[in-house]
Parts: sequence; structure tokens; C-alpha cells
Amino acid sequence: MYPIKVKAIEWTGKGVKWLNTNLLPHQEVYEESSDYERVAKAIESMEIRGAPAIGVAAAFAVAAAVVNADINDVSKLRLLAVKAIERLSRTRPTAYNLFWALERMRKVVMKEYSNGDELRKAIVNEALKIYNEDIETNIKIGEIGEKLIEDGDTILTHCNAGALATAAFGTALAVIRVAWYKGKRISVIATETRPVLQGARLTVWELRKEGIPVTLITDNMVGYVMYRKLVNKVIVGADRILGDGHVINKIGTYTIAIAAKRHGIPFYVAAPTSTFDLRSRIDEVKIEERNPDEVRKVLNRALITIEDVNVLNPAFDITPPDLVTGIITEKGIVTEPYTENIKKLFSL
Amino acid sequence: MYPIKVKAIEWTGKGVKWLNTNLLPHQEVYEESSDYERVAKAIESMEIRGAPAIGVAAAFAVAAAVVNADINDVSKLRLLAVKAIERLSRTRPTAYNLFWALERMRKVVMKEYSNGDELRKAIVNEALKIYNEDIETNIKIGEIGEKLIEDGDTILTHCNAGALATAAFGTALAVIRVAWYKGKRISVIATETRPVLQGARLTVWELRKEGIPVTLITDNMVGYVMYRKLVNKVIVGADRILGDGHVINKIGTYTIAIAAKRHGIPFYVAAPTSTFDLRSRIDEVKIEERNPDEVRKVLNRALITIEDVNVLNPAFDITPPDLVTGIITEKGIVTEPYTENIKKLFSL
Repeated sequence: MYPIKVKAIEWTGKGVKWLNTNLLPHQEVYEESSDYERVAKAIESMEIRGAPAIGVAAAFAVAAAVVNADINDVSKLRLLAVKAIERLSRTRPTAYNLFWALERMRKVVMKEYSNGDELRKAIVNEALKIYNEDIETNIKIGEIGEKLIEDGDTILTHCNAGALATAAFGTALAVIRVAWYKGKRISVIATETRPVLQGARLTVWELRKEGIPVTLITDNMVGYVMYRKLVNKVIVGADRILGDGHVINKIGTYTIAIAAKRHGIPFYVAAPTSTFDLRSRIDEVKIEERNPDEVRKVLNRALITIEDVNVLNPAFDITPPDLVTGIITEKGIVTEPYTENIKKLFSL
Repeated sequence: MYPIKVKAIEWTGKGVKWLNTNLLPHQEVYEESSDYERVAKAIESMEIRGAPAIGVAAAFAVAAAVVNADINDVSKLRLLAVKAIERLSRTRPTAYNLFWALERMRKVVMKEYSNGDELRKAIVNEALKIYNEDIETNIKIGEIGEKLIEDGDTILTHCNAGALATAAFGTALAVIRVAWYKGKRISVIATETRPVLQGARLTVWELRKEGIPVTLITDNMVGYVMYRKLVNKVIVGADRILGDGHVINKIGTYTIAIAAKRHGIPFYVAAPTSTFDLRSRIDEVKIEERNPDEVRKVLNRALITIEDVNVLNPAFDITPPDLVTGIITEKGIVTEPYTENIKKLFSL
């Protein structure tokens, strides 16, 4: 129905194949591994990144672990799967889709099976189901969200909530893609998204592949472009959304939301329901603090400051619900009051 | 009275000596020239940057032009000085101190002189006066501003409004320096300030020289550090301040001011009265748009995106007076209502 031009993660039949996003946009290198430890390291080092993509890759990594093990005993194979799940769940602490996907895998692993092959098959099927559902979900998000987009809109997006952050199609970028495919003449302003530059490296690359006009800005130009009325809407993705509407997303999201509020610019979050964490309170969410050298350097090589300067490097920040105009999910758009409406969304 | 540890610009007797800020923090290279065209290029390429520093350097460049010219005829020497003033006034369009300093030079140039040496001497004296006044002014700004700083404060600053942006001592960093010298235990959060990274390269280097604790963040972490209550005050410099209190300063300042407002964190601007442009309306101020490669690359070498992507690169943004808690000048602190109080400041 829609062209899928970028596939960042795939199941090869015996392992995971992924586009190494750390090398984009200059090199398009696909990595392949049937070793869950290698996939775990790819998630930690952000070769694979983006909440839904991490979830899908982790599910495939569990599948790879059992598919390549010469074990027929169900208990032993189950133990291996659980070990893989535990390792993968320690890769990154904030994105909820990782835990959601691994929990689905764990449930399948814990069922009764008469032999190893049956368990193997169930695990692979569940991983493929997570993968396929993610694509369908993203297309739905795109179709629901595009109704918010008007012809002529310029949409600001942060980081990369695109095909490179999901099984395909993206979340925020799904909305932009569908609007574009429907013939709406839109353009995008992408923030570069320091420190890891997912906007400059990934979003620009992805939108260029689609032919969607994109303008790159540094993160500190957000207020300026709003002041100059160069932006009509903001759409970002999410790494975790709480039951009360708090949105945890890439560092910088909160600052953009504050600026959008001042300017009366709608601020939308696009995310699948697998991103919702209905149990945690905001003070229980761990915000990942990454290697300070990500800030001290650019592209892991160009040192921009004194090499031992103290730095902060939180990978995410928290946007409170009062700044969020709406959350676009595959089940519909949620607006205030969030606690009530998110409850309704999940009881549909 | 206070130690002056960094001198970015000096008069050598026949020309200008400056610290090439583009090479900091990795190399401390001093350049020297008696050619005003070379100084103009140094301002354009940001070897010399920061509103007061640009003004001082331009004044010295005019002095260098006449000091090194083998001309005794007053009219001919005057013509050369005017030519230098015109060239220097075209280097950068936004910082007001440049035009203020060159206007002072022009007035001196236009007086009557009985011979070339008399004119030469008057020009050099005026340039040195501008230089010395800038240092005195900054110390006064520091002493007036430090009363706002409390023991234990963490102050967020943007770009570099330090010794490297002035004749010495700085504006925003003068406030921080004096508070530190008076024994207040303060620390600083410096934003890296993309695209040219004056925070990461210059402010970190300068504060390290003083021994003042500094933590570096990316520009998009501003909301996060305020949310986490890691910041008590914001102090920035200014490139131009209008009669109604609009503050034109390094790109990113406006976004910080919006975030500070949401969090109830005082947002101060520290600038000499030479930064005030009492004639222009906000729509008359030219915001310099710089080379797009500053955004596409980091440190002028590391390409971070697709090489021909469309970018915006405004060097400055505009912070409206409702976001400004106070403007710290050498004549006192101005607060709302700005139009009235700025008038009073200048009629003192």
C-alpha cells in the first residue's frame, strides 16, 4: 500500500540483520549476527536505536539464540532463552518497548512445549509477530496522524522517530510520510539532536530518500524558528509514556515542548501503545546517563572541548502532559485529561 | 584589584595582537597584524568574536591603519581612516558595539588637526580609551552583578560572554568571576553552543583557567537541567539591546529564556551600555545568517549530515523583554518596565 524504502531490521531465518545507524549517512552498512550478545552490544552502542526498533531487535535476538542452539531439551532451551532475555533487558534502561517486547517473549518461552523445536518455532513466531505488528502499527499511526497535517505545513521533528527507529515506516515520520504520500505539500525542520546527531545523520537521510523537503537546524535554533513562524506543528516520537501522560523521549524534547507552548504551536507525540508504561510513576523511571565522551566529542572522534571536562549526558528528558497537545497511537489520538483518556485507550 | 588571566586583544604599539579563538581550546595561538583588512577578516571568520571584543579590535584596526601609513597630509590620512572604518563596519551586522566603537573613531577622525601625527595620536588614544573603558566597564558589571549571586548558586551561561568576548574579564563571566573572587562557592553549567561551540571551546577553557567548577551540556539539555533543579540562575551576554529591552544574543539564548521563565529561574543579561541600540526597532535589526557549513560540519571539518542538505544558520536570536529578569550594566541593573528604565539609565 505504501512504499517501504528503509528497512533497518530484518530476520534472516537464523539471525538478525540490521543497518548500522552509527555509520549513517556516509556509509550504509548492514550487519548480521545470530549471536544475541552481539545484538545486545549493537543496542548498547546504538547501531540499533529507537524504542520500537530496540524491542524488535531484542525479540529477534532471543529467537536467534534458540534457533542456533543444538539443544532439544525444552528446559535447557528455555534456560538459554531466559538468559538471552535477561542480557537484552540490561542493554538500555529507558525505552519501554524493549521491556514490552521481552515480556512478550518471556511469556511465550514460559509456556509448555513437548519438544525443543516446538519452543523454537513459538519463539521465532512471536518475534516475527512483534516485527510485523510494529509495521502495521506504524502505518496506522501514520494514517491517523496525517489527518492533523494540513497542506503547506512545516513540521518540526526531533531526533529520529523514523524507519530507522522502528521495524519500518517510523512513528513521527510515519505521520509525515502518509501526509506526503497523500499529496500534502509539507516540509520538515529537523533538529540535529546532539550529542549523537540522529536528526542530522538519520532523519535528514531518511527524508531525503523519500524526497520530502527537509531543513536542518541546530538544537538551539528551536525558539528562533518558532519566533519567525517557520513551524506550524511539532511531532516527535517517544521512548516511554506513562499512564498520566508524561512523555520520556530523546534529550531536547522537553525544551522544544516548552517553546511550542509559548508560541501556541501544537506539540504531538506519535508512538505505539507498546511505548506506554502504565505501572511506573515518573520518579521510578530511570533516565539513562550515557558516556560523557558523547558530549565531549562529535561523531566519536572530533574533540570539541577540554578532554576531561565534567559533563552531563542524559539520553532522555521528561515532558509533562500539560505541554502535550495529543498522543497519536495506532488506536487513536489521546488528549487531555491524559490519565482518564489513556485508561480508555487501553480498555478499548 | 582582580587578576586578569586572559587577554584576548591588545595594542602592540603598531598593530593588533589577538588570541585566535577558533583554535581554542586545543591551541593557544596569538595572531598579530597591522593590516586592518587582516583584522576585518579575523572578525568575519570569528578568530575575534564577542560584541565588545569586536568593537575594541575594530578600533585598534583603524589605529593600525593610520599608524603604519607614511602619510602626513591630514585629509589623506583621514580618508584612509574612513576607508578602514567602512571596511570594518561591514564585517558583521548584528553586534552593536562594533558600530558604537567605529562611530567613536569616526568622530575623532572628523575633528580638525594641524598635521598627520596629531590625527594619528588622537586615533590611537581613542582606540586605547575604548579598550581601557571596556575593561573598567566589565569590572563594574561584575561588581554590580555579583550581588545577585548567592553562595551555592549554579549559574547557566550560554556561548562565551567572557574575557574572550571582551577586552578582558567578560560580561556574564565578569559577574561569575567577581562572585568567585569574593569567595562565593558557585558553579557553572555551560551550554556547548552549536554551531561554533563557543561554550564547549571557550567558556570551559576560560573557567578552567580560573578554577571555577564548570559542567558542559549540549544545548538541548537546558530544559532537563532546569527540570532537575540543577540551575538557580541564568546569565548571558548580549550583542545588541534595544531601547524597549529586546535582547539580541547568540542563537539559543531565546530558547533558554523561555525555559527559564517556565521554571521561575531568573534570567539575567550582562552587557555594557555600548551594547544598547536606542534607535532601531526590532524589525530593523539584521540577524546575521552565516555559512551553512557551520551547521553541516563541526569544527569546520567533521561532516555530520548529507553535504548539501538545506540548513538555517542565524547567528543570533531575539529575546523579548518579558523573559528578561534584569540587564546588568556598568551603570546599574535595569528591570521592567524596560522602555522607561533604559531611558533613565542613559539620562544618568
